Amino acid sequence: MIQLPEVIKNAVDALTKLPGVGEKTAFRMVMSMTNWKASELKVVGDSLTNLKDLKLCQDCGMFADEDKCSICADEARAFSRTLCVVENASDLMAIEKSGNFRGVYHILGGVLNPLLGVGPDELRMDELRDRIVQKEIEEVILAINPSVEGDATCSYFKTLLPETIRVERIGFGVPIGGSLEYLDPMTITKALENRKRF
Amino acid sequence: MIQLPEVIKNAVDALTKLPGVGEKTAFRMVMSMTNWKASELKVVGDSLTNLKDLKLCQDCGMFADEDKCSICADEARAFSRTLCVVENASDLMAIEKSGNFRGVYHILGGVLNPLLGVGPDELRMDELRDRIVQKEIEEVILAINPSVEGDATCSYFKTLLPETIRVERIGFGVPIGGSLEYLDPMTITKALENRKRF
Repeated sequence: MIQLPEVIKNAVDALTKLPGVGEKTAFRMVMSMTNWKASELKVVGDSLTNLKDLKLCQDCGMFADEDKCSICADEARAFSRTLCVVENASDLMAIEKSGNFRGVYHILGGVLNPLLGVGPDELRMDELRDRIVQKEIEEVILAINPSVEGDATCSYFKTLLPETIRVERIGFGVPIGGSLEYLDPMTITKALENRKRF
Repeated sequence: MIQLPEVIKNAVDALTKLPGVGEKTAFRMVMSMTNWKASELKVVGDSLTNLKDLKLCQDCGMFADEDKCSICADEARAFSRTLCVVENASDLMAIEKSGNFRGVYHILGGVLNPLLGVGPDELRMDELRDRIVQKEIEEVILAINPSVEGDATCSYFKTLLPETIRVERIGFGVPIGGSLEYLDPMTITKALENRKRF
């Protein structure tokens, strides 16, 4: 087998750390990059290195250019009394894309997972509780994904809040476009539980 | 829609330039990288930027750590009288993987393509001819992919060489594991042309 230079091996190793990129894909990427100009390589390299400078909104924890993200900086939303708790930035963006929530968000940074050593201190729980009190939030929507850990996180979180605050969790059931035939028993069970008078 | 920071947009834009990476995939990669440490980001960024330092073997044009690649530096192969011409480094590695060629290679850097402005001067044609003469190569195997441009490149190249040198092109036909049912008419035609007494 031919010995490949270190620079190629390093680039392949680095790219395999990306999600969904195996050794073959990484190799194909690097092969294509061997035809790039030094300036083009620098642009890609720097843009990835520069992700270290990513700032987080001091309120919700979302990515931000300034101290606050564009949602928390939006006057029309900043004083909303409704707060939506999400696990991460991707979940926040998914909800934002639906265009049907006009309150503020709070990114937890994950869910409680004792097996992986994620306790309340690893999540942005205290910031969340303080913010709810300070901002006089009246309604908290838990947009936490359904899983054992997610359920436990929601239960734990509810115990932190005064009873006057309304805490709700997003609805579970059959997704639009979904087919009962292919859905798992747990989703069907939830869909039956969450039935509504028609 | 939420405004994402410039650093994220830049990283997504950069990654979409990789083969097989669309905007969604790039975004997923960047989202995952937002959880990386600055040192990890630097390793990936630098490893890509460093591809600019990639050296090419002064003989065959393959990637190399030193002046010569590991094949041209191999005494047992360097004086071989058989030379295999390939389009690029990936093709070279594919042949090398088969383990059945023990001569030296020469990377052309592509095939003639007048529409894209690739003429003989853009390819490593002159180096190849000089090398064949200097190294007293007796047999040239053209491992150029079958296409209109590949065929033209092979025909053109043959005119450059003295007639004493044996020039051969790799065989075309049904690939091992292939099924006649799913092969294109051109491959079938080639397979019939290239039939051998059994």
